[in-house]
Amino acid sequence: MIKMQDFKVTPWEVEGKVDYEKLVREFGLKFVDDNIINRIKNHTKELNVMLRRKFFYAHRDLDLVLDDFEKGKGFFLYTGRGPSGPMHIGHLIPFYFTKWLQEKFNVNLYIQITDDEKYLERELSFEEVQKWSYENILDIIAVGFDPNKTFIFKDTEFMGNIYSLAVKISRKINFSVVKAVFGFKESSNIGILFYPAIQIVPTFFENKRCLIPAAIDQDPYWRIQRDIAEYFGYYKAAEISSKFLPPLTGMQGKMSASNPRSAIYLTDDEKTVKEKVMKYAFSGGQATIELHRKLGGNPYIDVSFQWLYSFFEDDDDRIKKIEEDYKSGKLLSGELKEILIEKLLSFLEKHKEKREEAKEIIHLFMRDGELAKEMRKNRF
Amino acid sequence: MIKMQDFKVTPWEVEGKVDYEKLVREFGLKFVDDNIINRIKNHTKELNVMLRRKFFYAHRDLDLVLDDFEKGKGFFLYTGRGPSGPMHIGHLIPFYFTKWLQEKFNVNLYIQITDDEKYLERELSFEEVQKWSYENILDIIAVGFDPNKTFIFKDTEFMGNIYSLAVKISRKINFSVVKAVFGFKESSNIGILFYPAIQIVPTFFENKRCLIPAAIDQDPYWRIQRDIAEYFGYYKAAEISSKFLPPLTGMQGKMSASNPRSAIYLTDDEKTVKEKVMKYAFSGGQATIELHRKLGGNPYIDVSFQWLYSFFEDDDDRIKKIEEDYKSGKLLSGELKEILIEKLLSFLEKHKEKREEAKEIIHLFMRDGELAKEMRKNRF
Repeated sequence: MIKMQDFKVTPWEVEGKVDYEKLVREFGLKFVDDNIINRIKNHTKELNVMLRRKFFYAHRDLDLVLDDFEKGKGFFLYTGRGPSGPMHIGHLIPFYFTKWLQEKFNVNLYIQITDDEKYLERELSFEEVQKWSYENILDIIAVGFDPNKTFIFKDTEFMGNIYSLAVKISRKINFSVVKAVFGFKESSNIGILFYPAIQIVPTFFENKRCLIPAAIDQDPYWRIQRDIAEYFGYYKAAEISSKFLPPLTGMQGKMSASNPRSAIYLTDDEKTVKEKVMKYAFSGGQATIELHRKLGGNPYIDVSFQWLYSFFEDDDDRIKKIEEDYKSGKLLSGELKEILIEKLLSFLEKHKEKREEAKEIIHLFMRDGELAKEMRKNRF
Repeated sequence: MIKMQDFKVTPWEVEGKVDYEKLVREFGLKFVDDNIINRIKNHTKELNVMLRRKFFYAHRDLDLVLDDFEKGKGFFLYTGRGPSGPMHIGHLIPFYFTKWLQEKFNVNLYIQITDDEKYLERELSFEEVQKWSYENILDIIAVGFDPNKTFIFKDTEFMGNIYSLAVKISRKINFSVVKAVFGFKESSNIGILFYPAIQIVPTFFENKRCLIPAAIDQDPYWRIQRDIAEYFGYYKAAEISSKFLPPLTGMQGKMSASNPRSAIYLTDDEKTVKEKVMKYAFSGGQATIELHRKLGGNPYIDVSFQWLYSFFEDDDDRIKKIEEDYKSGKLLSGELKEILIEKLLSFLEKHKEKREEAKEIIHLFMRDGELAKEMRKNRF
């Protein structure tokens, strides 16, 4: 648990303005630098926008993952989703980066739906968590993963295959550790105390290095994993960790279900998207058009610009022009918001179509695809 | 966790000379009295020796179980075994009482093999625990349960069917509770912290009252169960609890794998049985034959007598005569030991035969019998 003077980051809470550099130093990660980006580019030819713009900005052992890939040993990907409610844009875009990695390196991907964790950590009913699991899985499948190389599983329904391994892992982790790492208390329930063992299990699914693309708040799990992996004869988990897409309402914290204004949900309709961006997206512009023309805006605190920069405007020349025009005052806040709205609407429209198609192929990811079939036979 | 001045009883440790009356008061159970014994006898006609002699001596809600039985609602039985090593006589005889209850009341019985717990609580390898699970299950089946009304399962292999319920239960139990009840510490591993939820699961297998025949050291689990059962719409667990068969070496503690002299193992051969009883069985006799003839022996501290009384000498007239003859000095310590040895050898011989047969029918208890088949289809 990292709780600093001005901000707080745990797998369950992000508060305040996150100092991402400080997190990297405190957690002991490395920055994604040009050197490692160039090594990736050697293999992928082009670079994903989230890597180019360093939205995925920190890593552990990514260099060793690339070594293994180059030696032909390969690696595998693992990420997940806690199904506590509808997914918003901020939840989904790391999956786009994961899909890019799968496509470029042609590797297996495991996606854990942590329905147990969300039930244990929230006041939700078991049925609600099951409903959100299904809804979220459709959103994830819509991203376009390879159905023969991707296995999506809910903890409660795959536990028969993984409980023995979770038990073995759990013997190596005590209350002091989870208290120190996650801030668990004496009042924490015994299910959530056990849960970290379950999130570690998939890092042992293959005897290759496991690369985890995820937001940096998940790092505490991987720190524990790295302390015990070699005892079990497996590799320490490697990570490539992202920042949080800032909430619409400003650069602090992360988008939150408890404040619907802070996020664009994947189910938001055109009117809602326009309204949210126009009304709530925090602007780096000036108070009046006259002032804006004169002084220019500040793209670095402007949420619309940040969203375009992190993900939605893939074209480097175009984002550079937007940045300059905004700074010079040529581009107004309202116009910047219009650019984002257009991108969002086109993204959501495509997403909704692919989400419908996902209903027809969900069985491939969970049961009938090549990797899923193999996994259903395995007992760990 | 009950830790009194002179003795200690937890599910993992029994130390000192147990004051069984004090345990009942501290745990809040009721004594098995003549009134409840007569109510049982109304239905069973005859009374099992362990009930007649009050080896099963305490209960919770046994009166309500009988009410439910009389009203036609019925009840079910649940007990278990922690497979940490070979079984000895003390482990097995409560199963004989359980079998008697099943036969007389014609009810379903669930037997949980807690391989996860034993792995988490000991320094054993996972493979050792699996080996002992199989060996112990054969010993249990040899007792003669109804293969269509008995379901035996290992936690690690049945977890797929019960994890969701364990998760629901675990949300209602926090670290403070398991610390207070079991004496868990900050250094306890997160697997054993979660485990109490798993031991509670089978009390919810049917929407009837669950009667648990077990040694009294398991009571802490049922106290937690009774605090949360009604929240889940189930009955508070009922118990009928036994004392421990005293170790050969004297009336303190319970038989222990770490001291093989203290116990008769189900695999002990004739020579070993004779040697152990003759050499190590604590005697209430006098130092010399002359003194013994003159002063008589004390059956109440004599382990051979206690074993005969609690289980091996079913005949009330005969045990009375043994008691009197021993007290009067007519029966010598060596002769008393011979009586026990004969009973033990005949018991073990029959057991070994039935244990061989168990290998052929183990599948009925775990997969193919009527109850097992039904349970394999259920997800809790």
